[in-house]
Amino acid sequence: MRIITINREFGSGGREVGKRLADALGFAYFDTEIVEAIAERSKVDPEYVHEVLERGVFNDISLTFAHSFTYAPHHHKSFAIMESQNEIVKELAAQGDCIIVGKNADTILKKEKPLKLFIHADMEYKIKRCMARAEEGEQLTEKQTKRKIKQIERARASDHSYYSEIRWGDKRGYDLCINTTGLEIKSVIPAIAEFAKAWFEKSHETEE
Amino acid sequence: MRIITINREFGSGGREVGKRLADALGFAYFDTEIVEAIAERSKVDPEYVHEVLERGVFNDISLTFAHSFTYAPHHHKSFAIMESQNEIVKELAAQGDCIIVGKNADTILKKEKPLKLFIHADMEYKIKRCMARAEEGEQLTEKQTKRKIKQIERARASDHSYYSEIRWGDKRGYDLCINTTGLEIKSVIPAIAEFAKAWFEKSHETEE
Repeated sequence: MRIITINREFGSGGREVGKRLADALGFAYFDTEIVEAIAERSKVDPEYVHEVLERGVFNDISLTFAHSFTYAPHHHKSFAIMESQNEIVKELAAQGDCIIVGKNADTILKKEKPLKLFIHADMEYKIKRCMARAEEGEQLTEKQTKRKIKQIERARASDHSYYSEIRWGDKRGYDLCINTTGLEIKSVIPAIAEFAKAWFEKSHETEE
Repeated sequence: MRIITINREFGSGGREVGKRLADALGFAYFDTEIVEAIAERSKVDPEYVHEVLERGVFNDISLTFAHSFTYAPHHHKSFAIMESQNEIVKELAAQGDCIIVGKNADTILKKEKPLKLFIHADMEYKIKRCMARAEEGEQLTEKQTKRKIKQIERARASDHSYYSEIRWGDKRGYDLCINTTGLEIKSVIPAIAEFAKAWFEKSHETEE
């Protein structure tokens, strides 16, 4: 089983890398499917799951604990989401070659030795990309976009710190860190696919 | 002119990446040639240049200042080496497509917009690699090798900090960070060459 996990800065094009790379390699691609599967299993609304994952599932649990000082029904939901996330990520990875974006898959699947990618870009580029891709009615100003990017990245970093000792985005935690600033993502997919193939071949060799 | 600069952790195989990548792309490769050219121009021994560069040329200047509190003949040498390094790196880069390993080329050539690579690996892997490649009579113990790696990397990081605001090895300062832990470097060269080609095409487009 060959698994690629992608962690990414918000607005860096990490999801586009994931989708295109999955196409190039013929791997399954999992992203929003996971949110829906978690929602179904935890018996909550997908939109709510999305929100919790965006805040970071661990952050959510510790925050709600800190605010209430008691074990509230709210925690049940967050724990259920976290447990479902762990289960579903493992189940999907067991099905076959795949790419998983976010969802702490790099640490949940540690034993499966995934190829770990981190996609990042300069703040200016991320702001431009976010603003160009915002849906109608959801347009933010440049300043608001920057704030949103920082907020989401802080949540991802914080959530990651519950799972791993290596900081989110620290190159030591990844096999390849790709800076997409000014890049047309499509143009570097063949190179990343080639890297992945060579990497998995080597990785299989060392296991034997 | 297409320029690739490589910064690397000691023992990560960065020089091997540089040499092989230069072969794959048909670029010139500069490394020890620079040391020799600096020696010739600064009228000092190549071995001495090598030592100063290993300690970090800026470190060397500030250290000798701090120790002597006066401007000694020693400083002349260090300054001459630094100036020669800057000149020679620029001259080589002006000659044609090339790859330069170390020598602060990423920051010296900032205006030329090089493709910036950083090569790193886990400490355990770097120690193994160093010990396997040590020449006869220069064998160090595991502990000594680790100390040497740390020492050299500290010097590189410190020297880099005089040239750039972004920390040495911070992924934000590079286009691609490659973790060579457990990899056979040869096997990923085609992928890196492919990435470089796509990157330069894009980079040329934006300049027009």
